[in-house]
Amino acid sequence: MEIPSKLVSDAVNEFSRLPGIGKKTALRMVLHLLQRPVEEVTHFSAAIQRMRAEITYCIRCHNIADAVLCHLCNDPHRDENLLCVVENFRDVIAIENTQQYRGRYHILGGVISPVDGIGPEKLNIETLLCRLQAEPVKEIVMALNPTIEGDTTIFYISKKIKDMPLKLTAISRGIAFGGELEFVDELTLGRSIHARLPYENYLVHPK
Amino acid sequence: MEIPSKLVSDAVNEFSRLPGIGKKTALRMVLHLLQRPVEEVTHFSAAIQRMRAEITYCIRCHNIADAVLCHLCNDPHRDENLLCVVENFRDVIAIENTQQYRGRYHILGGVISPVDGIGPEKLNIETLLCRLQAEPVKEIVMALNPTIEGDTTIFYISKKIKDMPLKLTAISRGIAFGGELEFVDELTLGRSIHARLPYENYLVHPK
Repeated sequence: MEIPSKLVSDAVNEFSRLPGIGKKTALRMVLHLLQRPVEEVTHFSAAIQRMRAEITYCIRCHNIADAVLCHLCNDPHRDENLLCVVENFRDVIAIENTQQYRGRYHILGGVISPVDGIGPEKLNIETLLCRLQAEPVKEIVMALNPTIEGDTTIFYISKKIKDMPLKLTAISRGIAFGGELEFVDELTLGRSIHARLPYENYLVHPK
Repeated sequence: MEIPSKLVSDAVNEFSRLPGIGKKTALRMVLHLLQRPVEEVTHFSAAIQRMRAEITYCIRCHNIADAVLCHLCNDPHRDENLLCVVENFRDVIAIENTQQYRGRYHILGGVISPVDGIGPEKLNIETLLCRLQAEPVKEIVMALNPTIEGDTTIFYISKKIKDMPLKLTAISRGIAFGGELEFVDELTLGRSIHARLPYENYLVHPK
C-alpha cells in the first residue's frame, strides 16, 4: 500500500504497531484523525503521551495508580483478610467488573516462564511475601490464567508460604456459562466433573 | 468498566473515539503502550500530532501532500489526458493499488448529499472546472461510490462539462470477482447483464 505522504505514512506505521491493528485499520484511523480539528488531535496525542510519562504504580499492590497508593489500596471498605493475586491489572479490571470480590489485590507483573526467561525474581513475589508479614491477610486467592506458567507460579508461591498461617485458594475451573459440553476440551470437562459442586453452590449468583 | 487511573482512563477515552474502536480494544492498546518504553510512546504521539499539524493538500488535485503539489501531480510520467475524479484520497490509494490507472486525479472531498447539507459548492468542483480549462484533459473517469449521492454528483458534473470537448466515463459496475451470483443484489446483477462485455474484455487483467 503506497501512501502519498511521509507524514501520513509515519503515523500509519505507528498505529499499525498497536496490537491487532493492521495497515488498513491504521490508515482508517489516521484518515479519521486527519478530518478532526487540530486541537482534538493535539488532545488525543497529549493524553497518550501524558499517560505514559506520568503513570505511577501503587507501591503496595503494583496496580496502576495516579498517586502513591492505588484507589483500591486506599479504599477502607476493602476486606484486608482477602488478597487476590493476579498477573496484571487488566485482570484486576476483569475481576472488579464481576462485583464478586471485595478484598485487595497483588499484581505479579507476569507469571513464571522459563521459556521467556522470566524467573520468580522478575515478578513481584518478594513484595507479596513482605505484605503477608505486614498485613492481616487470611486467604490468598490465586487468580492466574489457567496455563502451565500460571500453575507453576501458583506452585512456587504455595511453597514460599507453606509455613504461614494462610489459606491458599485458586479461582475455580470448569465449563463457561453459555458454553456447550461437546465443544469443551477434555481436560476442562474432566476437571469440572472431578471438582463437581453441590447444587446449592451452582447458582449463577452465589452471593 | 472502571479504570483505576484517570490518566489511563483519559487515554482509553481518546482511543475509543477512533472508528471501530470500543472501550475494550482501546484499553488493550493503552495497556500495550504502557508496557513500551517512554521514548517509543513519545514517538507515537509525536508522529500523530505532527501529521495532523503539518499535513498539506495538493493545490492542484487536493490529495494529501508533503509539499505544494502531491507526488502524483509531480510525476511527469502520468498521462495528462486522463483525469480520475474520486471522493477522497482513500479512493486514490485503492485505485493506485490496482496498478491499472496511469492518469491524474481530482479529489472532490465528498459527494453531493442534500440530506447531510453537502451541496456542490462544498466540494472541489469549481477547481475541477478550472483544471479542465487549463490542462489537456481528454477523458474524465468518474470513480465515485455506487450510491445515489455518487450518481447525483456524476450527473451534476456531467451537466457542468457538457459543452466541453471531453469524454466522460465511469468505472464499471457488475459482479465482483469471487462473488456468487445467487447472493448478488438484483440491481447489480440486472445491470451486469445489461452492460455485458465481449469475452475479450472479460479477462482478469485486461491491461
